[in-house]
Amino acid sequence: MERIFAEYYIETPYEVEQAAAVLAGEQSSGTFVSVPGETAELKERFAARVENIEKLDIVDEPSIPGNSIPGKKYQRARVQVSWSIENFGYNLPVLISTLQGNLYEISQFTGLKLMDFDVPDSFKNHYRGPQFGIKGSKASCGVTDRPMIGTIIKPSVGMSPEETAALVKTLIDAGIDFIKDDELMGSTANSLFDNRVNVIMKVINEHAQKTGKKVMYAFNISDEIDQMQRKYDLIKKHEGTCAMISINSVGLSATKKICDQGDLVIHGHRNGWGMLNRHPLLGIEFPAYQKIWRLAGVDQMHVNGIQNKFWESDDSVVKSIQSCLKPFVCGNNPLPVVSSGQWGGQAPETYRRTQTTDLLYMAGGGILAHPMGATSGVNALQQAWKAAVDGLSVEEAALQYPEFAASVKKFAK
Amino acid sequence: MERIFAEYYIETPYEVEQAAAVLAGEQSSGTFVSVPGETAELKERFAARVENIEKLDIVDEPSIPGNSIPGKKYQRARVQVSWSIENFGYNLPVLISTLQGNLYEISQFTGLKLMDFDVPDSFKNHYRGPQFGIKGSKASCGVTDRPMIGTIIKPSVGMSPEETAALVKTLIDAGIDFIKDDELMGSTANSLFDNRVNVIMKVINEHAQKTGKKVMYAFNISDEIDQMQRKYDLIKKHEGTCAMISINSVGLSATKKICDQGDLVIHGHRNGWGMLNRHPLLGIEFPAYQKIWRLAGVDQMHVNGIQNKFWESDDSVVKSIQSCLKPFVCGNNPLPVVSSGQWGGQAPETYRRTQTTDLLYMAGGGILAHPMGATSGVNALQQAWKAAVDGLSVEEAALQYPEFAASVKKFAK
Repeated sequence: MERIFAEYYIETPYEVEQAAAVLAGEQSSGTFVSVPGETAELKERFAARVENIEKLDIVDEPSIPGNSIPGKKYQRARVQVSWSIENFGYNLPVLISTLQGNLYEISQFTGLKLMDFDVPDSFKNHYRGPQFGIKGSKASCGVTDRPMIGTIIKPSVGMSPEETAALVKTLIDAGIDFIKDDELMGSTANSLFDNRVNVIMKVINEHAQKTGKKVMYAFNISDEIDQMQRKYDLIKKHEGTCAMISINSVGLSATKKICDQGDLVIHGHRNGWGMLNRHPLLGIEFPAYQKIWRLAGVDQMHVNGIQNKFWESDDSVVKSIQSCLKPFVCGNNPLPVVSSGQWGGQAPETYRRTQTTDLLYMAGGGILAHPMGATSGVNALQQAWKAAVDGLSVEEAALQYPEFAASVKKFAK
Repeated sequence: MERIFAEYYIETPYEVEQAAAVLAGEQSSGTFVSVPGETAELKERFAARVENIEKLDIVDEPSIPGNSIPGKKYQRARVQVSWSIENFGYNLPVLISTLQGNLYEISQFTGLKLMDFDVPDSFKNHYRGPQFGIKGSKASCGVTDRPMIGTIIKPSVGMSPEETAALVKTLIDAGIDFIKDDELMGSTANSLFDNRVNVIMKVINEHAQKTGKKVMYAFNISDEIDQMQRKYDLIKKHEGTCAMISINSVGLSATKKICDQGDLVIHGHRNGWGMLNRHPLLGIEFPAYQKIWRLAGVDQMHVNGIQNKFWESDDSVVKSIQSCLKPFVCGNNPLPVVSSGQWGGQAPETYRRTQTTDLLYMAGGGILAHPMGATSGVNALQQAWKAAVDGLSVEEAALQYPEFAASVKKFAK
């Protein structure tokens, strides 16, 4: 019978074998005393198995609160556990409760992080994954051999629909490929969602009719499910191509329901991610996280950016981009969305480390605050990526491209 | 204009005022350079405000990875921030992205936890909260002046529907009020959901016809939204009274959609909770967490238990129970679900510290592994609660009640 495999990074004052057995028990048949009905056949078929243990370093202090044993230090390890697919069938929430459920409560651990998981072929065939992903996103706005260049409407909250549409026009005229609502912008008192879609899509459609280029706008549809559906349909009606969902805030079941429809590119915003990932020994790592949302069908996944303004390391960002580009379910790979303090200066390093232009490269202030104006801001980003692929350094690129040189002067630290 | 208030427990190597201002900026208009359109009027209306700062202790080491400043230690503080309701309207996911979004990424913090939040009257009137809550849950199974006594089907996964129904019959005959699926049990290869509902509800309905007592069974409907709806309708068709949702795995929008229907009591299982809460300076505390799910309409909320088998402290459990019992939205309060290693011996301490019997008290092995059988197991739990309300200690209760005495002998550590 096919099995699902999960890999955890754990820390425990107990023998790792013993702690891992508690995890496997808790996540398949656990109660604190054995009960009638827990037969050998049942265990063989449905019990979780500890497949592998790789011991790592030993530390003096526990990483998170848990049991201590007098005189015992804390052993870190990688532990691989597996479950038969008979345990859940095709039910993503129950799969998540199995991979990421009560195991975080187990007192035998002083650290536990889900690093990665894998599903068997039947799962990979059952879930079609992103409908659009990299290929569909790029094709939709006519981008070929470079990253999509995108930006976020700022200030996030507060502009009227007309002010927003005017800004969209500026950005489109400047040559942008993609624009998104901020995750804080849903439907505010002075910018109702419907009005915003109406005036923004008018600008985008007019430009598309004139030039053939349909700029992608990710309207933030995050809401209760019926409202999300209504907003999704409204975007379709106005010939929009994309909707954004704050996936952690909306949740898995409602996000999948929207993705399943397959008419709009779904831009997955991971705000709240730090809560799930920031501690090195608690939560979930991105390679596992992005797989959950690929199973749900999200087309574009935020991955932060090199030299970002947040806390995340470049290594983590690189690993995140790479994980999106690895095949998983049949069909498309999701488009990694690079953002946070990006202005183009990070392009050479991003390309050097990932060797890909299959990205949506998002710059906020980097475009609108460009000293020569927004058009030069977009040009500077395209120049930065051309230079990156050509193997130029930031300094070499600045010598060659005046718009990018102006970015360097203004934004480089 | 009404405002929403949130309280964070933070840690930072910067001046707290400065770090708090970054948080407020990031969560209302933030970009790393100021952009055109960010007018004073707009800021006044939509910017988040730092309302209060209370400095706490200073520590030498950062709690989670973030910026450091040479020579600077890490100041902890309570910070209160507020937003105008104009920023989101009645949109729970956007509210969550505001309270719990990118702020966890801010490098100026080396710790950040959402402790509590409050919404204004318009919100409290808009969201009707739990349809059943404490009163409706207890009334449904005819319990008045004691906690509901419940148990979980164990082994969690692996029994056939018929084996499960036989166990349900044993438990009902023993006098139980409430039974639930384990969160790992959705629809397994040998126990399809529909079959399970069919045979279990037959047992429950027969008992109800004979005795007038309708035992509440929380079938785990956690799944994709259409499947959840189908399962919800199936339970209704079989005259069941309750459905369980793994709220973290299913997510907010789909959970609210189910709660809004108001025909079944919704049992909210918080598996995955440790990931969100276990670190003292990352994530969310239960008083804030339960408010989110009350806004969604969840009727019963897991709160762990005193002297539980997991890592959580008794203080935290007590605080969680108390937070459920505090009025919030208009209407019902959610029923706190006490579980994890409970066998009745914790009843006196639970009552002493919370002074309430408005609980669903869940015991697994404590009932089925009772040395005198399941009926005695249920009796022992009722005895434990009678004793607790009468102010008896565990020892005094054991002298008075033989079934409880047998529990003490078997389960007390």
